[in-house]
Amino acid sequence: MKAKIHVTLKPGVLDPQGEAVRHALGALGFAGVEAVRQGKYLELDLAETDRGAAEAAARAMCEKLLANTVIETFRVEIE
Amino acid sequence: MKAKIHVTLKPGVLDPQGEAVRHALGALGFAGVEAVRQGKYLELDLAETDRGAAEAAARAMCEKLLANTVIETFRVEIE
Repeated sequence: MKAKIHVTLKPGVLDPQGEAVRHALGALGFAGVEAVRQGKYLELDLAETDRGAAEAAARAMCEKLLANTVIETFRVEIE
Repeated sequence: MKAKIHVTLKPGVLDPQGEAVRHALGALGFAGVEAVRQGKYLELDLAETDRGAAEAAARAMCEKLLANTVIETFRVEIE
């Protein structure tokens, strides 16, 4: 199965990378960009064929490696 | 409006970052992870209120700054 994972900073956590993108967009002439938040997106191909087990495995991977749960949240979709 | 942008490597382009994640997951004991592709996820808050104009602007931002279209593709969703 395929797991699609979004890892994003929690609201309130400063995002200097997103702020740099916002500033660069302004410098390129794109007006009206009020905020930018940057996160990670991962696609995992899993050998697991059971949907529930694949989701549980993907969530465990996020907790242990893919997300820093102190400052980041994650979202897992299984296809 | 909010633009949600995914930037991912084109198929066939080597992804050493994803490969490093796959290897690290294996080292942590997660078996059955066959492939990992890592991309970027951005959320932009745009002052634009017209859906079509917001999408056009977001696509232009991807072409000019957010994606390297030689090796990456992007997907824009407007909410």
